[in-house]
Amino acid sequence: MPTLNDAALDQLFRNARTHNGWQPRAIDDASLHALYALWKWGPTQANCCPARVVFVRSQEAKARLRPCMAPGNLDKTMAAPVTAIIGMDMAFYEQMPKLFPHAPDARNWFAGNDAAIHDAAWRNSSLQAGYLIVAARALGLDCGPMAGFDAARIEAAFFAGTTVKVNLLCNLGYGDPAKLHPRGPRLGFEEACQVV
Amino acid sequence: MPTLNDAALDQLFRNARTHNGWQPRAIDDASLHALYALWKWGPTQANCCPARVVFVRSQEAKARLRPCMAPGNLDKTMAAPVTAIIGMDMAFYEQMPKLFPHAPDARNWFAGNDAAIHDAAWRNSSLQAGYLIVAARALGLDCGPMAGFDAARIEAAFFAGTTVKVNLLCNLGYGDPAKLHPRGPRLGFEEACQVV
Repeated sequence: MPTLNDAALDQLFRNARTHNGWQPRAIDDASLHALYALWKWGPTQANCCPARVVFVRSQEAKARLRPCMAPGNLDKTMAAPVTAIIGMDMAFYEQMPKLFPHAPDARNWFAGNDAAIHDAAWRNSSLQAGYLIVAARALGLDCGPMAGFDAARIEAAFFAGTTVKVNLLCNLGYGDPAKLHPRGPRLGFEEACQVV
Repeated sequence: MPTLNDAALDQLFRNARTHNGWQPRAIDDASLHALYALWKWGPTQANCCPARVVFVRSQEAKARLRPCMAPGNLDKTMAAPVTAIIGMDMAFYEQMPKLFPHAPDARNWFAGNDAAIHDAAWRNSSLQAGYLIVAARALGLDCGPMAGFDAARIEAAFFAGTTVKVNLLCNLGYGDPAKLHPRGPRLGFEEACQVV
């Protein structure tokens, strides 16, 4: 496979930024389906696919989301065309007979093992959130991921009666470059990586 | 921003597969640095960047890795040009004065709060693993992520005397398509997503 061209690498990573302001431009159903049609393919442990996403778009749903947000994340979230609530189904293993059919025992690698469930739910739903973010950028959308919210309120408002817990939120839309913050620095290669 | 072209979307997501066999082709230092120069830019909570990666490449390091692997992951890992051990620094907040300089108090959002440290370490190191996987594909590399290993042995062999815990492993190289397994199915949009 070739390396993607510089424009693509810039769009996905090098020039991509966490957005705080949004152009008045909606995201339609077809775009949300096109987004899922990409990020669903990202790999997860034993194909367990624990992420469950609620795309908040209507005024009614935004009103439910409002009291769940940390103050610093409120205005930009209310202004975003869509907010993705990325959850993790703690009973994800019930789908494994469908998702990992060649290993009929795969459900039992997790069922009843709280530590294995916990690690797999966090690890894989977060991996899938990473795929969602990069896939959105690949489709020309901007992202604003957030961890500043009241998890218990989110779960009561959006996941009541289910086995889904919230992991993180991500605003989606077409960003307003005028509202970007200065970019934060990153660790140097030697601070984050070793080659042995 | 435009949508990336179909060839790029195929390479990143639609045709990208988890590889189990590897062509005899090495990965040099420049490629590992180029990879970091992409994935480091992926967003994390308050720019906390908790992922710490050991790229296992030498025969000496492979010998250390060997007894840490689950049997089903052993041969393909020993054959891979590089195995990335993706860890999470549970003291990541000590870097926040550098990484999030405009909020001098950011270290104290985490220090002493085990639940906040835990959630942020898992969430963000896994997000960064997702960025690493997609960035590797963008550079023409194939990936084989894995969760089947003995975490205590990995930590003793590669992270002794540090505050880093292992999250997942990912083989990197140029895949052998003849050794792919059949692709697993994914959940339908309505099983994994809602629009409200």
